Parts: sequence; C-alpha cells; structure tokens
Amino acid sequence: MIQLENYRQEFPALANKNYFNYGGQGTLPKIAMNTISQAQEYIQSTGPFGSEAKTWIDSERKALRIAVASELNVTENTVTITENVTMGCNIIMWGIDWQAGDHLLISDCEHPGVVAISQEISHRFKVDINTCSLIPTLNNDNAVTIIQQNLRPNTRLLVLSHVLWNTGQLLPINEIADICNINKTLLLVDAAQSMGMLPLDLHSSGVDFYAFTGHKWLCGPEGIGGLYIKAESGERLRPTFIGWRSIIANFQEEPISWQKDGQRYEVATSSYSLYPGLREAINIHKQWGTSTERYHQICANSEYLWYRLAEIPQVQCLRTTPPESGLVSFQISHSKTYTSSQLVRFLESECKVFCRYIIKPNSIRACVHYFTSKSEVDKLIEGVIGWIERERKS
Amino acid sequence: MIQLENYRQEFPALANKNYFNYGGQGTLPKIAMNTISQAQEYIQSTGPFGSEAKTWIDSERKALRIAVASELNVTENTVTITENVTMGCNIIMWGIDWQAGDHLLISDCEHPGVVAISQEISHRFKVDINTCSLIPTLNNDNAVTIIQQNLRPNTRLLVLSHVLWNTGQLLPINEIADICNINKTLLLVDAAQSMGMLPLDLHSSGVDFYAFTGHKWLCGPEGIGGLYIKAESGERLRPTFIGWRSIIANFQEEPISWQKDGQRYEVATSSYSLYPGLREAINIHKQWGTSTERYHQICANSEYLWYRLAEIPQVQCLRTTPPESGLVSFQISHSKTYTSSQLVRFLESECKVFCRYIIKPNSIRACVHYFTSKSEVDKLIEGVIGWIERERKS
Repeated sequence: MIQLENYRQEFPALANKNYFNYGGQGTLPKIAMNTISQAQEYIQSTGPFGSEAKTWIDSERKALRIAVASELNVTENTVTITENVTMGCNIIMWGIDWQAGDHLLISDCEHPGVVAISQEISHRFKVDINTCSLIPTLNNDNAVTIIQQNLRPNTRLLVLSHVLWNTGQLLPINEIADICNINKTLLLVDAAQSMGMLPLDLHSSGVDFYAFTGHKWLCGPEGIGGLYIKAESGERLRPTFIGWRSIIANFQEEPISWQKDGQRYEVATSSYSLYPGLREAINIHKQWGTSTERYHQICANSEYLWYRLAEIPQVQCLRTTPPESGLVSFQISHSKTYTSSQLVRFLESECKVFCRYIIKPNSIRACVHYFTSKSEVDKLIEGVIGWIERERKS
Repeated sequence: MIQLENYRQEFPALANKNYFNYGGQGTLPKIAMNTISQAQEYIQSTGPFGSEAKTWIDSERKALRIAVASELNVTENTVTITENVTMGCNIIMWGIDWQAGDHLLISDCEHPGVVAISQEISHRFKVDINTCSLIPTLNNDNAVTIIQQNLRPNTRLLVLSHVLWNTGQLLPINEIADICNINKTLLLVDAAQSMGMLPLDLHSSGVDFYAFTGHKWLCGPEGIGGLYIKAESGERLRPTFIGWRSIIANFQEEPISWQKDGQRYEVATSSYSLYPGLREAINIHKQWGTSTERYHQICANSEYLWYRLAEIPQVQCLRTTPPESGLVSFQISHSKTYTSSQLVRFLESECKVFCRYIIKPNSIRACVHYFTSKSEVDKLIEGVIGWIERERKS
C-alpha cells in the first residue's frame, strides 16, 4: 500500500487545506489535470477539426464508457455520457411518455434540481407528484416500508438517491428496485453521492436508471457525468434533447433512426478533453484499491470522524450510529438559527477546513474519502471545538 | 495592425497545417488554452468546493455573459450559457407549449440535429413539420419569398440558420424576423456559422432566439456555447431540462420560481474553466479589430479563395459570385460519386490542408477566417490542382 501522505500529493487541492466537500466536488488528481491540458493541446495540434481528431474523440469516448461501465459492472453500450448528474435525471424524466393522472414519487431528500424537474413535469403533463418522508428513517431502517406505502398502482416512476445528500443515509436500492419491478414502476437512482463511493453492481440489480456525475466522489473534472440505462427499461424511453450524436443518418444526411446504444441520449459537441481526465481519475482510484477496499476505508474514516464528533458534548450527529457512507452530518446544540452557515464560514476562513451547511435538516456536512487523513479529521474537530469556545465566550 | 504571421502564432493549431475548418471547429488561441489550465488549477487551489471557488464561478459566469452579450449587442440578462448550439435549439424547441396541429417550419439546409429535434417534436405533440427549399435560392436572392410562401397561419416556430452550413448562404434574418412577427411566428436562428463571423445587432432585430456555439468562428474551447432569448419572446417559453441553476429556492431549499434571467435555462455543474477560455477567445478577436472589420477581412479572404477556385476549369463554386460569408463550397466536375470525401482525405494527408466534405449538396467546404493567410489559400489551390492532375492520370 502506498503511504497515505505521498498518495495525497497526487491531489493538488489537498496541499493547502483540510477538505471535506467530496459531496460537493472531489479533488482532481494532478494526472487528470495534466491529461486534460495535453488533450486540449493534442486536439489543436492534430485538428481541431479533422480526421485524426475525430478518431481520437471516438476512441476517448469509447475508453471512457468502458471505464465507467466497469465501475457500474454493466456493458458499455448501456452508458450515456452527460454533462452532470442532473442532465441524466432530465433525460429519464422527460423521456417517459407521461399521461395525465400518472403518479411520480420522489423522497423528501432529493436535490432541488430533481424536485424542480418533477414540478415542471407535473405542470406540463398533469402528473401527480408526491414526496415520501425519508428523513425520519435515518436511524430506524424502515425506508423500504415507507416507499412501499407510497407506491400506487399508477406510479410510473420513483426517483430516489442511492446515498441521501443531506443525511448521508444509504438506501437499499436493490430491495427498492424489486418492489418497483413488482409494481411496474421505473426506478431512477440519483447517484450523485454514491458513484465513486460505493462498490456497485448494477448488472445484478433491478435498477432501471442510474444517473451520476464524475466530479464528486470520482474526483473527475466538473462538467462530465453519465447515465446508465438498463436495456429493457430503455425501450420505454424516448430521447428528448437531441443532436447529431443521438442519430443515425442516411446517405443524404437525414436522420432515420436513433443510435443503438447510450449515445442516443447524447446531443452534440462536448468538452472532449474532459473524457481522458475523468478516465485518469477513475484509474487512480483503481490503482489504490478495489471499490470494496475503498468503501471500507471511507467507512473507517467516517466512523473515526463520527466518534470524534460524538466526544463533543455540544455536537449531535444526525446518525445515532456510525454512518454507512462518507457523509457525516451533525448539528451544534443550543445554536442560533443560522449557526450552521456561520460555522462553515469560520471553519473555512480560520481553520482551512472545508465543509458545507445543509438547510434541511439544518446541519453541517463533512465528507470523508478513502484518502482523508486522520490529521484532517483532527483539524475539523479542533475547529468545531474552537468555534464552540468562541460562541460561549461571545 | 499586427503583422498577420505574428498574429497567427497566437493559434497553435495553425503551426503545422493549412486550416479551413472554422465551420467545424475554430483554432483555440494559446491564451485561451493557458487560461483554461490556470482556471482548473485555481479551482483546485481555492476549493474545489468552497466559498471562494463559488465567488470565482459566479464572477466568471457574469463576465462571460457580458462578453457574449456584447458580441450580440444585447443585455447580459438575455443570455443563457449552454454546452453547444444544439442545446440552445433544444431549449427553445422543447420550451414551446406545442398543440396538436401546430406547424413547425424548417429549411432544407438545417443541421441533422435540428431536423431530428423537429421530427421528435412532431412525433410527441402531433405537430406538422415541413421543410422549405433554400438550396435553389443560393444564387437568386429569393429566400425570403420562399419562406413567406411556406409560413402558415398556424406556424408557431420557424427554425433557420443565419449562415447556411452547407452552401455558406447568408440569410437576411432581420427581414425574415419581420415577416415572422407579422405572422405571430417565433423565429429561432441557428447561429452555428454566424456567431463570430458576422457583426451582429440583435437588439434592433426582431429575432426571438439566437443559439450559438463558442467553438466554431469564435475559436473558443469545445463544449461551451450560448443562447439569446428576447425578453418578450421568453414569456412564451418554459424551461425543460432543469437543475439547481434554473431555480430560485425558498429558505427550506424548495424551488419556488425560475431564475429571472437567462440562467433559468441552465441546468447544473458545467466545466467552468471553459468560461474564461471562451472570454479570452472573444477578447483576442476584439483586439484585432471590430466585428465589422473582421467580417470585411473574412469576405476579402473568401473572395480571394473564390477567384482562385474559379481559375481552375474543373472546379465549380456553388456560388456564382463571391460569397458573403467565410464558407466557400465547391465541386469538382466529372468526378466520381464519392470524390468529395476522397479529395478531403487527400488534402489532409498529402497537403496538410484541412477542409470537409458536405453531403447535400455534394461538395467540399473550405472556411476562411479573418486571419487566414493568402499562402494557406494558395496551398489549398495547389492541393486541388494536384488532386485533379492525379485523377486525370489514374
């Protein structure tokens, strides 16, 4: 095993701070950054528009889809490359042939972007949406029961995060997928917080759609993500936002059919130099260890953080036991209403500790990756204690 | 005025080839490339996810929208940043509240991506599409008449390119916009070939929507473009693909309304380091001269190319007079069916001359920018003559 401190030097962002915002954006490895610059130079040197550049783009697209498919344990033809996780959610949610009166179910822990898509779909197609409440299930493991109670015979789609972005709760998506399949409900999983954090095997799961981004736990560049569409489930979808990448044209350049694979949901020119960047980020994690090994290390790190936080009397972690993910959300008791955001600002400016605050439930979220160091966690703890001291004195 | 040969050194792609593919992708200036790398380093050094990085992203977004708005002569609040021109077309075409039986008009020179969007919209909403024939108007100036004949009382939207990507024809979009306004037809202009080539003044034009990309005539990085939406016309649209960037949320983080400006059509995390890259590309052109000066130089260069091509007996330019744009399309007479693509391959591999072939009408397209040199044009001419010689001998 590589020494942790040496390994961390692969990530320039870690050189000058204590970083706990992987759920917002991961730290781009140096090799990915260099690869992106080299790709941009290469495109200019060989083209930018010409036969060699085209060959390079095609081969980078293929290589990235293979790399991503391997993370999900699916075949590359089921993978669409997108700009971000929300684009993936849009592709699915607008791709369904909604009928007035259909039901769309989401949870109370979905990202505002997904909530807004649901609202607009409800408006346009007279679809009923409702929101099932998962926040209360954080410590009692009955999320599946709640979801089951909220499914209706006409629920066309359930949208759910694999790991909840606010509380860090890990949902048993395979079990939920089984319930959905029985109910003939399609399941779209928002994988913003799970891709790159959890070992995944979508091949043996009933999940229909899995939308993710490359720039959070995978530590790729921002502006690139992807979407897995199970082959059978794709038959119930149509492409919405469309471009030359989506179609097959005849000899007169007229569109005559969709691309056969995940490319049918891709639109037009993207920042192709990001493709090898994300691939290198995926690669660096693989070199460190398997996805299972990395997940175990993430849990070991979040357990350490959770225990250290639990030692501070004024701190309550949202979870009553160590988390099953890299997200640790906590509150400071007897704090003023807006303490969370103040504490986050204090930690960043005074302690070089980067966390974020969460509005619902009002809390501070600290994310640990497999390469988070104990000394980083200790700095976070020091910062929180320092803040509490200062508050008490003021 | 800067010496042309010195100026051309700002564009690394020009160092090793004769480049005529600005209509496919422009040559990224060195300063833009460096700025992108520096931005990526800065994001990592200051974040990537934290308050300073957020401030930087917000200010770069604003600066880019101002730069783009200035190119269009509109206010920045009417500008949406997109991934490419086709995304802009999708935003508009899916944002209209289509009713069964509505009519959508496009031309026979629209890009296959736009044709595919039209077909899908026709399928989903039972909208009638038809295609008016502009290819025959290239040399007789009656495009406006043709369009007028094809508008119907129920034509909701006309989609038209400002400069046709195949023949290089420049359409009088202001005149066309006036006709559309009288007919209560919305006009979406595909500006893939005009943004960065023509001096533009959308403020005093009746155009409703203008979708463009940064990576062609503006010579920005690939994967970034934009969309202008006239304020009044925006009232007839709804956002379709949506994310956290589109919405205003309340204190509980629930979406309660759309962003007031062009941001309402933006979705989620993008490759923000491209923003200063495109801004620097726009800036470098401005330093060379005004958009009118650049356009005059483009026309001078395409005139030179057109006359040189006209000297070759076996060559027919599609235009019977020098073009009004930087796109010069031509055919080789008595050629075998697939000569265009063969000639393009020959020029690239044997002469380092980069053109593309066009399927409809079957031709070779050579694009000249304001910084195209006479010696580049001469190399293209030599290459074409060399090919004709070789064909004759074979």
